[in-house]
Amino acid sequence: MAEKQYVYSFEEGKGLGKTVLGGKGANLAEMVLLNLPIPPGFIITTEACESFYKNNSKCPSYVMEQIEKHLLALEKKVGKRLGDKNDPLLVSVRSGAAVSMPGMMDTVLNLGLNDVSVEGLSSKTGNARFAWDSYRRFIQMFGDVVMGVDHDKFEEALNHVKKETGAKVDTDIDVAGLKKVVQLYKKAIISSTGKLFPDDPREQLTMAINAVFGSWNNDRAISYRRLNEIKGLLGTAVNVQTMVFGNTGERSGTGVCFTRNPSTGENKFYGEFLMNAQGEDVVAGIRTPQPISKLEKIMPKPYAELVKIYKDLEKYYRDMQDMEFTIQEEKLYILQTRTGKRTAMAAVKIAVDMQKEKLIDEKTALLRVSAKQLDQLLHMQIDPAAKKNAVLFTKGLPASPGAAVGQVVFTAEKAREWAGVGKKVVILVRTETSPEDIEGMNAAQGILTSRGGLTSHAAVVARGMGKCCVAGAGDISVNEKEKYFIVSSTRIKEGDTITLDGSTGEVFKGPLSVIEPELSGEFGQLMAWADKYKRLGVRTNADTPHDSKVARSFGAEGIGLCRTEHMFFHEERIRAVREMILAESLEKRKKAVSKLAPFQKEDFIGIFREMEGLPVTIRLLDPPLHEFLPHEEKEIAKIAKELNVTADFIHKRLEELKEFNPMLGHRGCRLVITYPEIAEMQVEAIMSAACELAKQGKKVFPEIMVPLVGIKAELDFNAKIIREVADKTIEKYRIKVDYKVGTMIEVPRGAITADKIAETAEFFSFGTNDLTQMTFGFSRDDAGRFISDYLAKGILETDPFNALDQEGVGEVMKIAIEKGRKTRKNLKIGICGEHGGEPSSVKFCHKIGLNYVSCSPFRVPIARLVAAQSALEEKGTDSKLVSEKG
Amino acid sequence: MAEKQYVYSFEEGKGLGKTVLGGKGANLAEMVLLNLPIPPGFIITTEACESFYKNNSKCPSYVMEQIEKHLLALEKKVGKRLGDKNDPLLVSVRSGAAVSMPGMMDTVLNLGLNDVSVEGLSSKTGNARFAWDSYRRFIQMFGDVVMGVDHDKFEEALNHVKKETGAKVDTDIDVAGLKKVVQLYKKAIISSTGKLFPDDPREQLTMAINAVFGSWNNDRAISYRRLNEIKGLLGTAVNVQTMVFGNTGERSGTGVCFTRNPSTGENKFYGEFLMNAQGEDVVAGIRTPQPISKLEKIMPKPYAELVKIYKDLEKYYRDMQDMEFTIQEEKLYILQTRTGKRTAMAAVKIAVDMQKEKLIDEKTALLRVSAKQLDQLLHMQIDPAAKKNAVLFTKGLPASPGAAVGQVVFTAEKAREWAGVGKKVVILVRTETSPEDIEGMNAAQGILTSRGGLTSHAAVVARGMGKCCVAGAGDISVNEKEKYFIVSSTRIKEGDTITLDGSTGEVFKGPLSVIEPELSGEFGQLMAWADKYKRLGVRTNADTPHDSKVARSFGAEGIGLCRTEHMFFHEERIRAVREMILAESLEKRKKAVSKLAPFQKEDFIGIFREMEGLPVTIRLLDPPLHEFLPHEEKEIAKIAKELNVTADFIHKRLEELKEFNPMLGHRGCRLVITYPEIAEMQVEAIMSAACELAKQGKKVFPEIMVPLVGIKAELDFNAKIIREVADKTIEKYRIKVDYKVGTMIEVPRGAITADKIAETAEFFSFGTNDLTQMTFGFSRDDAGRFISDYLAKGILETDPFNALDQEGVGEVMKIAIEKGRKTRKNLKIGICGEHGGEPSSVKFCHKIGLNYVSCSPFRVPIARLVAAQSALEEKGTDSKLVSEKG
Repeated sequence: MAEKQYVYSFEEGKGLGKTVLGGKGANLAEMVLLNLPIPPGFIITTEACESFYKNNSKCPSYVMEQIEKHLLALEKKVGKRLGDKNDPLLVSVRSGAAVSMPGMMDTVLNLGLNDVSVEGLSSKTGNARFAWDSYRRFIQMFGDVVMGVDHDKFEEALNHVKKETGAKVDTDIDVAGLKKVVQLYKKAIISSTGKLFPDDPREQLTMAINAVFGSWNNDRAISYRRLNEIKGLLGTAVNVQTMVFGNTGERSGTGVCFTRNPSTGENKFYGEFLMNAQGEDVVAGIRTPQPISKLEKIMPKPYAELVKIYKDLEKYYRDMQDMEFTIQEEKLYILQTRTGKRTAMAAVKIAVDMQKEKLIDEKTALLRVSAKQLDQLLHMQIDPAAKKNAVLFTKGLPASPGAAVGQVVFTAEKAREWAGVGKKVVILVRTETSPEDIEGMNAAQGILTSRGGLTSHAAVVARGMGKCCVAGAGDISVNEKEKYFIVSSTRIKEGDTITLDGSTGEVFKGPLSVIEPELSGEFGQLMAWADKYKRLGVRTNADTPHDSKVARSFGAEGIGLCRTEHMFFHEERIRAVREMILAESLEKRKKAVSKLAPFQKEDFIGIFREMEGLPVTIRLLDPPLHEFLPHEEKEIAKIAKELNVTADFIHKRLEELKEFNPMLGHRGCRLVITYPEIAEMQVEAIMSAACELAKQGKKVFPEIMVPLVGIKAELDFNAKIIREVADKTIEKYRIKVDYKVGTMIEVPRGAITADKIAETAEFFSFGTNDLTQMTFGFSRDDAGRFISDYLAKGILETDPFNALDQEGVGEVMKIAIEKGRKTRKNLKIGICGEHGGEPSSVKFCHKIGLNYVSCSPFRVPIARLVAAQSALEEKGTDSKLVSEKG
Repeated sequence: MAEKQYVYSFEEGKGLGKTVLGGKGANLAEMVLLNLPIPPGFIITTEACESFYKNNSKCPSYVMEQIEKHLLALEKKVGKRLGDKNDPLLVSVRSGAAVSMPGMMDTVLNLGLNDVSVEGLSSKTGNARFAWDSYRRFIQMFGDVVMGVDHDKFEEALNHVKKETGAKVDTDIDVAGLKKVVQLYKKAIISSTGKLFPDDPREQLTMAINAVFGSWNNDRAISYRRLNEIKGLLGTAVNVQTMVFGNTGERSGTGVCFTRNPSTGENKFYGEFLMNAQGEDVVAGIRTPQPISKLEKIMPKPYAELVKIYKDLEKYYRDMQDMEFTIQEEKLYILQTRTGKRTAMAAVKIAVDMQKEKLIDEKTALLRVSAKQLDQLLHMQIDPAAKKNAVLFTKGLPASPGAAVGQVVFTAEKAREWAGVGKKVVILVRTETSPEDIEGMNAAQGILTSRGGLTSHAAVVARGMGKCCVAGAGDISVNEKEKYFIVSSTRIKEGDTITLDGSTGEVFKGPLSVIEPELSGEFGQLMAWADKYKRLGVRTNADTPHDSKVARSFGAEGIGLCRTEHMFFHEERIRAVREMILAESLEKRKKAVSKLAPFQKEDFIGIFREMEGLPVTIRLLDPPLHEFLPHEEKEIAKIAKELNVTADFIHKRLEELKEFNPMLGHRGCRLVITYPEIAEMQVEAIMSAACELAKQGKKVFPEIMVPLVGIKAELDFNAKIIREVADKTIEKYRIKVDYKVGTMIEVPRGAITADKIAETAEFFSFGTNDLTQMTFGFSRDDAGRFISDYLAKGILETDPFNALDQEGVGEVMKIAIEKGRKTRKNLKIGICGEHGGEPSSVKFCHKIGLNYVSCSPFRVPIARLVAAQSALEEKGTDSKLVSEKG
C-alpha cells in the first residue's frame, strides 16, 4: 500500500483529474500548468480520504509520511518553514471533492501560526496588527472547525475585549487588544474541550487534514449529496496551499474580476478590488471596493500582468472567466479562475460575440446558454436592486414567469372594468380561478391565487397568456366577498398595489421597479442557430389569433394545441354554451349549438390566417359541461333570467352534472359520444374556416384532435363524425383542403393500446398533464397538499407536473410511441402538455423520438434552444455545456 | 366449379362439420348417423351461400342443379312429390349458420302447398281444416319472409274473416273461412308487391332458398354478428327437410322433453306434450300440455321408442338432452336434440350424478357447471313464479346478487334501529351510500341506491357483506329528508315493503316469495374436485372475523384484502378517528390514534384466529380522511360538541380536506407520508395481535400491504416504518412471527415501475378497481353516466368495472408481472379488486400467472370453480364446456 501515491504537488497533478484530485485540486494543477502565479502547495487525494475512513477516521501513517515529504518540499520551494520564528510558512487547508459542494465541508486558513511564529510574521511584514489579527482569526477558525468549539464562545471573547478597549468595530482593536483576544480564545478552547490549543504547526496540520476529511461525512454534506444525487465518490481531497495576504499593507490588495461584463456581456474587463484587504473583506461589503480599471494607476505592473493573464485565460478556456486574485507586496497571485456566472442577457451576448471572435463555433455557442436563463429574457423582471429593500410578505409557487406590478382586485369583472375603462394595471387575486375568470385574467397583468398547484387552472391559463402568476400562496387568506386578503397580520384591500415575481413565487407589498425584457439582436442570432441544428419541431399552444401571432414571432412552427373551449367563455358566447347545456331535447341543443358556429368559425379564420402555411392542431371540446355553468346564486339567477328558465332548473341540471371526480368524468371524446352535435358544429366551423381561406389562396393545414381517447372505438366514433362533416364541408366549398384526424394520448389505456388506436389516428399528441395525473393517480388540483411533503421527504425530486417524470410517465410514452409506430410507421407524434416547454422534458421528448413539442408562446424560444442542445449533445460535440447553475 | 358438391343429403353429411353444413345441418347429419327417426332432407352448404353472394344474390345454376337432383332423390325416398295433388311432399326451409344466431335469419314452413296440393293434403290426411290452415299459414310466412309483405296485411285479412264468420279465435275459423283467408292473403300479396303468389312449388323453393341466403345479410343478422364478434363465416347453410305434422288428428302430437329434470337435476325423464298440435302450440301456451309420463298410456309404442332414444342419446352425448319430437299418425319423429339448459342446482347435480354413473369424469363434471350459474346457488333468489305477476317498477344495476324483501328505510340510523330493537327486515334506500352508512347497510337485508355504478360504495360494500344490492336506479328520486322515494308516479314511503333482485337489478313493489339457497352435497363434491385441479389460489376480501369465517366455510385459502378502514366506522371508534383528523398537533394526533389501537388489535385477533394457518393480507388505511368526517350540519354540531371543538372549526377542516378529485387525492400511502403515526399504530396493532396468538401456539401469517404505491420511494418510506414497528413488536413479545411487506399495484405508475417497486415489495396485489379507474380515466362513481352510452353504442362490450378489461388494464397487469418477477423471481402476485370473483377475469388471472385471486366471501366458490376450469382448459381436456348460455 505504501508505494501508492496519495499526495501530489500542484505541478505533479497534471492529468490526474477530478476523481482523484477533487475539483479544486485539479483546477490548481491546471492553473500551474498555464504558468499562472499560483501560491504553491500540494493535494492529498480522494483516495487518501477513503483510506482515512478505512482507518477508523484517522489518516494512515503511510499517508502522513507522504504529507510530511511534500511539506518539506514546499518549505524548500517557498523558502519558509512552518512555525518559523522569523518568516513562517502559513498554509490554508481546504476540502475539494470531485463535484462541487459549496459550503458543505470545512476550510482552515492561516495554519502555522503560534505564539512564536506570529512574531516572525509580524517582524517580516512589519505589521504587528496584521500578524496578531491573522493569529486570532486562525485560532477562531481552527477552534470552530477542527476542535468543535461553539462559535459564540469566540464572539463573547471578542466582544469582551472590544468593550474593554472601547473598540467599536473589530478593526479598532489594537495589537494589545488582539493579544488579549488570543489569550481569551485559547481559554475558551480549554474550557469547551478540555484540550489545549495545539502550538505545534505540524500537529495543527494533521488535525486540520483529519477534520477536513471528517467533514465529508457531516450531516450537511450527506444530505447535500442525497438531494443532489451525488453518488459513487470516494471522498474529498484536501488542498494544502501557501497563504498569501492582501492585507499586509498599502502595497497589497485583493480582488475579483471577470473577463467580460457578467451583467451585460460586454467584452470589457470587469471587476473590483480593495487595497490592504483579505478576500473576505470584499465579500463582507464593509468597505466599498474600487473598479478594476483604477488598479492600473495604483499598481501598473501587477495590473498589466493581470490583464495579460485574463486574456490568456479566456483564450485557453474559450469562455468568460471569474478570477480571484491577491497582490502581496506588489506581487500578483491568482487564487482561482473558473467559468463566470452571468445573467441571461450576458450569456446570450457572450456566446454570440465569442462565435464572431472565432473563439467558439455556433454549436458551442448554443450550448453556452441555459434554457432556464432564457426564460428571464422573455419576461419582465423585478429589478434585483429593488428586491433588496422590498417587503416580501409571502411566497407561492412560481406558476408563470415574469413580474407584475398592479392594484389588487378580487373579481374577474372588476379586473375587466378597471383595466378597461379605468385603464388601470391590476392584479387579480383569487382563492382559485375558474374558466369563468378567463376574461378577467386576460385583463390583469398578473394573477395570484391562494390555492392550486403548478398546473392549476390559474397556472395553465396564465402561462398560455404569457402572464405572470403566483399560485397556491397558501399563507394568504382571500376574502373575495369583502375584498381583501390577509397575510399574517397584513391586510391588503382592493386597490392596494402589490408586486408579483412569477419566476420565484415571491409576493411583495407595494410597487417594485421592473426591467423590461429585451430581445436583442444576439438573441435572434442564437435562435437562428438553434433552428439550424434542432431536429425536434417546436409548435405552440394557442387559442386566439393574438397568441398565434405572438408565438409565430417567437418562432413557433405551427399550433400543437388549440383549445376550443377557451373560445367558449367570451361573454356573447357563453350564453349559447349554457343554452346548449341546459337544453332538454336534441332540437333545442342543436339550435343552441348552431349559435356558436359563427363565433367558432371566426376564431378559426383568425388563427389559420396567422398560422398560414403551418399546421394547426385543434382539439375538440374537452372539459366537463358543468365547468360552463355558473355556481354562485347571483350568477345562477342572472342566467336563469337570460335563458328564461327557473333557477331551480339550473340547480337541478347542476346537480345532475355534478361529479365526484370530474377529472375522470364525462369529458373529452366522451362528450361527443353522448352529444355528437357539439363535435359536428365544431368540425364544420373548423373546416368552413379552412375552406374559405383556401379559396383565398391561403395554405391551411387543419389537424383535428380528439381528446381523452382510451379505447379505439371511442376514436372511431369521433373520427367518423369528423370525416363525414369535414368531407361534406369540403364538398360544399368545392376546394381541396388536406386535413388530418388524430388523437391526444393522455389516458394510460390510450398509450397501452396505441397500436390499435393508430389504426385510426393519423397523429398522436401526448397530453402529459392528464397522463401524469392518471399515471401517478395525482389530481393536479389537489396534489399540492402532499407533493410538498413528497419533495421535502425526498420521495419526489421534482414536481412531475413541472418536469416530466421520465421513469414512469416517460415509460408510458415510450410504449405508446413504439406501439403507435408499429401500426403506422410514420406516425407524427407530438406533446402538448405543459411539459412541452420545460427544458429537461423537451430533451426527453427529443430522445424518445417525438416529431415536435408544443408549448406556451413565451416558452417557444426555450424549447427551440433545448431542442438544438439536445441534438448537439446527441451528436457528441466536444464543447462543454454551461450547467443549469452556471 | 360445377363438380364441387354444394348440396348434401342428411346421410351424406357425416363428418363435414358446422363450417360447411351449419350448426343445424351438422346436427341433423349426426342424428341420422345415430339412426334417430329424422324427417329426411338435404343441406345446401355455407359455400353455396358464398356463391350466392358472388352471383349477385342469386343461387348460381350449378347449385340449383344440385338442389334439383337432391329434391328428386328426396321425393323418391319419402314416396311423395312436391305439389302432388294426392299426397304432396311438404318441406321446411331453414337457415343454419356455423354459429347459432337464434331468430336472426329466416325460416319457411309447409312449402309445397298450392291450390292443387292443398287438396291432396286434405284428402290424404282426411283433415281439410288442417290442410287449409297449413296452406294459409304457409302463404302468410312465405309472403312475409320471402316476398316482404307487411305482417299487418295478413293480420287484417284474418281479422276480417274472423269478424265475418263470427270466429273468436283463429281455431274457430272453419274450412270455408280458411279458403276465404287464402284468397285474401293472395290479394294482399299482389297489392303489396305487384306480384302473384307463386303457385309452382319449385319456384316457391327457389325463392325461399334465395330469401334464406339473403337473410344472412339483413340488418339484424349483421348487427348480431358484430355484437357477438362472429367473424370469418362464409354465410348460412339452408336445410330443406320433409315436414311432419303433429296436428293431423288424434293419432298425432308433439312435445318437448329432457333426459333429466332441468330444474332439480333429478335423473328422471321429464317433459310435456300436446296431442293434435304443432310445436308452436306448445310454446304459445294456449293449451296446457300434459306431462310426458302420460304419453305412455296414450301411445305406448312411440313412447317406448322415445324412452329408448333418450337413453341412447344421453349415453351418446354424455349430457342431459333437450329433445323436440312430433308424432304423426303414431310414427315418432325426432326434430331436434341438443344439450338441455338447466338451473344452477340441476347443473351441479347432473354433473356430479353423471360422474357417479361413470358417464363423465371429474374434469368434465367441473366444466359442466358455469360460474355464472353458481352465483344463483349462493344467494337467496326470487321465486321465478312470483316474478310473473309482480309489479316491476324500476331497474337499476345488478350490483350484488341475491334477493331482499323488506321495509324501506332512508337512513342508516333507522335501519339499525328497526333491524335491532324492532327486529324488522329492512331495505336501506339512499341516493348514494357513504362510509358513514356502513352499520346501517349491515343491518339491512338489501340496499337500493339511485346513483352510482357497479363499483360504487354501496355496490362494493354490499358485495363484501354478501348483501343484495341494486345500485344506480336512475329512475327513482329519493327524498331522504321527507322519507319517501318516487318512481314515475308511485310514491314509496318509509315502512312500505319492496323486493329487490340484486342479480338482475329489478325492484318490485310489495313482497315477493323467495327461495333460500341450498348448498347440497353435490355442491360440496364439485368444489372438492375444483380444488383438486385448480392451480390459482382463492382468497377472500374480508374485514371482520364473521366475514372471515363465512369465507373460510366457502373454501377461502386466506385473506387477500382486509380493509382496515371499515373497522373505523363502528360507533365507538369513529370518534377517535375524527379526533385524530381534527388534531392540530402531532401529540394530539398521536393521542387520538392511540385510542384506536386496542380496537384494531381486537379486530385482528379475531380475524387471525378465524384464518389460523392461512395468510392474512392487511391493507393500511386507504381512503382520504374527509370520508370520516360528517358532512351534515346536524352531525357536525353533534361531533363538535362531543370533541369539544366549534362547528366552525370542523367546517374549516372540512374545507381544508376538500378535494376536487378525491380519487386522485391525499389517500393511501400518501397519508402515511404525511401522518406516519397512523401507520405506526396500525402495524403495532396487527403485529401485537399476531404475536399474542403466536404465543398461544396459533399459526399466523400477516402480510402487511401498502395501498396506492406509484413510486418506489413511497413504498420504501412506508416499508421502513412497517418493518421498524413490526420488528420492535416482535422483539417485545419475544416470539417468532413471519410477516411480509408488500404493495397494491393499482396506480398505473406502480405497474410501469414494478421492477423497481419489487426491490422492496415482497408481494404484489392488483387493485383492479383503482387500476381500471386510472387506466381508463373513468371515475367509477361518475362513469355510470356515460358507460351506458358506451355499451349502447358498442364502444365497450362490457363494463370494465364488472369484467376486467384484458386488452388495456390486463396489458398493464402483464407489464407489472413481467417487470416485478424480473426483479424478484418468485414474487407472489394476487388480485384483490372486485374482478377477483368475476369468471372471465379469474380465467384471465390464471392465464397471466397470478398466484391467487381474492374476492368477496360469496364469490369464493365461483372463483374456485373458474380456477379449476381454467386449469383444465389449459391442459386441453377432451370434454366440452357448457357455454355460459347453456
